[in-house]
Amino acid sequence: MSTKYNIVSLIRKKRDGQSLTSDEMKYIVQAYTLNDIEDYQVSAFLMAGFLNGMNTEESAALTESMLNSGIVVDLSSIPGKKVDKHSTGGVGDKLSLILAPVVSAAGVPVPMISGRGLGHTGGTLDKLESIPGFYTDMNLERYVEIISKYNLVLAGQTKEIAPADKKLYALRDVTATVEFIPYIAGSIMSKKLAEGIDALVLDVKYGSGAFMKTIDDAIELAEALVRIGGQFGKRTIAYLTNMNQPLGFNIGNWLEVEECIHALHGDGPDDILKLSNLLSGTMIYLGDKAGSVQEGIKMSEEVISNGKAFQKWIDIVEEQGGDSSVIKNPESYPKATYEFELQSKNEGFIRSMNSYDIGMGSLELGAGRKTIEDVIDPVAGISLKKKVGDKISKGETILTGFTNKPATIEAVTELLYGAVEISSEQPKPERLVTHICDSEGTRAFEL
Amino acid sequence: MSTKYNIVSLIRKKRDGQSLTSDEMKYIVQAYTLNDIEDYQVSAFLMAGFLNGMNTEESAALTESMLNSGIVVDLSSIPGKKVDKHSTGGVGDKLSLILAPVVSAAGVPVPMISGRGLGHTGGTLDKLESIPGFYTDMNLERYVEIISKYNLVLAGQTKEIAPADKKLYALRDVTATVEFIPYIAGSIMSKKLAEGIDALVLDVKYGSGAFMKTIDDAIELAEALVRIGGQFGKRTIAYLTNMNQPLGFNIGNWLEVEECIHALHGDGPDDILKLSNLLSGTMIYLGDKAGSVQEGIKMSEEVISNGKAFQKWIDIVEEQGGDSSVIKNPESYPKATYEFELQSKNEGFIRSMNSYDIGMGSLELGAGRKTIEDVIDPVAGISLKKKVGDKISKGETILTGFTNKPATIEAVTELLYGAVEISSEQPKPERLVTHICDSEGTRAFEL
Repeated sequence: MSTKYNIVSLIRKKRDGQSLTSDEMKYIVQAYTLNDIEDYQVSAFLMAGFLNGMNTEESAALTESMLNSGIVVDLSSIPGKKVDKHSTGGVGDKLSLILAPVVSAAGVPVPMISGRGLGHTGGTLDKLESIPGFYTDMNLERYVEIISKYNLVLAGQTKEIAPADKKLYALRDVTATVEFIPYIAGSIMSKKLAEGIDALVLDVKYGSGAFMKTIDDAIELAEALVRIGGQFGKRTIAYLTNMNQPLGFNIGNWLEVEECIHALHGDGPDDILKLSNLLSGTMIYLGDKAGSVQEGIKMSEEVISNGKAFQKWIDIVEEQGGDSSVIKNPESYPKATYEFELQSKNEGFIRSMNSYDIGMGSLELGAGRKTIEDVIDPVAGISLKKKVGDKISKGETILTGFTNKPATIEAVTELLYGAVEISSEQPKPERLVTHICDSEGTRAFEL
Repeated sequence: MSTKYNIVSLIRKKRDGQSLTSDEMKYIVQAYTLNDIEDYQVSAFLMAGFLNGMNTEESAALTESMLNSGIVVDLSSIPGKKVDKHSTGGVGDKLSLILAPVVSAAGVPVPMISGRGLGHTGGTLDKLESIPGFYTDMNLERYVEIISKYNLVLAGQTKEIAPADKKLYALRDVTATVEFIPYIAGSIMSKKLAEGIDALVLDVKYGSGAFMKTIDDAIELAEALVRIGGQFGKRTIAYLTNMNQPLGFNIGNWLEVEECIHALHGDGPDDILKLSNLLSGTMIYLGDKAGSVQEGIKMSEEVISNGKAFQKWIDIVEEQGGDSSVIKNPESYPKATYEFELQSKNEGFIRSMNSYDIGMGSLELGAGRKTIEDVIDPVAGISLKKKVGDKISKGETILTGFTNKPATIEAVTELLYGAVEISSEQPKPERLVTHICDSEGTRAFEL
């Protein structure tokens, strides 16, 4: 560890609007990871960076030093280009559970390290763990063993992957320095680059249920992510997708797994199938198994219709300790003790569904965590019966809620009524995917 | 303690450029003093405030909550208006040691709580402690007892005075959040207001040897200090004074006490006597013992010439445990083992003397601290033989250095040569006092 830097001078430099060199940025991350500098110094630095900005060189150095704070997995022994997908998080976003088996069934290895739910959004790990016995906590040997066998592994972040990011995120969370694109991008990319990937597809969400509320912020984040991918020599393609209403019909852990099982049988909601096939088609293309995204989409449809994707799903569930009987017969899964329906008070059309509120409602019913200690109830959640643009009669069911905590129903019902707007006129449909962003820049994209 | 506030939300509010309410500001200071919120949260807040600014309401709330974090001394039992003086710190600034006995000899009680040296500047406490036996560490009972007896007390900051300021200053020092006027002003005023004063005279310094390098920054600080004084109902007058060369001839702890002894006999350097009399005259005026500052200056000159100020000085030294024999016979004080002279390499006029470098040179010789553990050598320091504007011949002595650390002499000599500029033309004299700032605003002032 170099001691040629003085942390107070580096904070002052950033405070005064100057740029740090790559070595200075790396010193801060390294020294912090080794506990050589204090939380209170790093938080002052993070705030100064948040307010005075970070240039691309500083962002790259931040990402690189977080990446190199832990192990960067070497998957070169596995043939083919390894491709993963990352979503910036949304409500009802269960796509990882569909496209991971689809892409690996199409011959592209998918080394996927996922996270837990955060606030109003669900996490892939929590969804996977609703399958009895399924484990995601494994060492790196086991991680490499599983992907070698099945072209697929679904793991949780280990302590060996980007520990600096873990430490910095915990500090940002309690010092109001989360919502800053260079930090967000560095956090995402340091973890993804550590997985051992060759290429990456990103689903950058905007709207009421996303962390980025506006398309402009989402584009800025997408461009930062794609730029960092390029700086590390990984082809990266990002799609900007609309999260103004939940994705699919189901929100909640097992409810989402169930929806994925149907989708892997080709029987999913239109938005789920379309977006999942776009992302998996792009992954297959980046994995060099298709000559174009279009061809990749066709291959995705094929491995769904010929059952290979579903078989991959069964295989990986069994390999990772899960009970595949519930995957084969989802009806056998236990039900929540309490169900309630939200019935429309008016006739008309669903004009909007606030994804954030619906995500928070699902969390309150038991599907998410308010504190780190909370235990998730896999059967809690919400199943939409209508989506934006649908016609609805007075008294007709908008959605069904599932919970084992009956005391929450009244407040959640009120929250959900506030989240669903009904109007007499049918709203114009919003497009699900609006832009693509890659090394050539950002442009409009129509699905 | 109110728990209705969430610290992360308050940091976010300041981060996003909003103003906090007084109650919110007070919550932060109070909760931090009680260790209810963390260093890393407060440092992020301090940086956000530094970069996004603090309005006058926030500054007042900050000062008030730091003030009220400890005891506010009640001196109402002592007749008359209690007046103190504060200097923002300079090189060779020993005026407190002159004006405290002068003003109290003129009948105005002076409750003076001073600090230690900071960086290149000396501290009144360190100077006082060069008098054998003199103590400044006392409880509040003793503090009140001494001032009741002599209209004067010279104390150090106790733990009971503004503990929040002490804690916040320590955090600012290691997080590059020191140099921000609302924090500086709050820190100064919370301690001064806690002393039990009715009015305050401020010596706000600018230039190479001051913390404020420019007159504009110094005016901004003076106005903040005067405004806070007004908010707390204390008449406050600030003078803006030039610190582009050291004040007087001597720099170093006992060397400065010695210069003050001469000044109290009416035999001091011109700049010292002029500025000291201005400040003490203003204090006497604010203490209602003179009808104008001019009259106060005359009274100051009187108590010097009739020996009352010197007698007060002897009295207070003896009362606070000091050996008055060295005050009466300063020649009896021990000398430094090593002396060295800086001789001019050219003929001409002293064009400038960098006070910062001279202060740092004195520190290196033993007169100051580089770390909190360093022990001060009372006899170390520098005695100027020439000042800016003086004619000098080649080989003539510019200054004499005193030290017990001979290893420092070579580097300090080099530093001091760099600090003194000699030119062939006589420079225009700089004015010592340039502005006055009070409740009516800031305006030019000629001494």
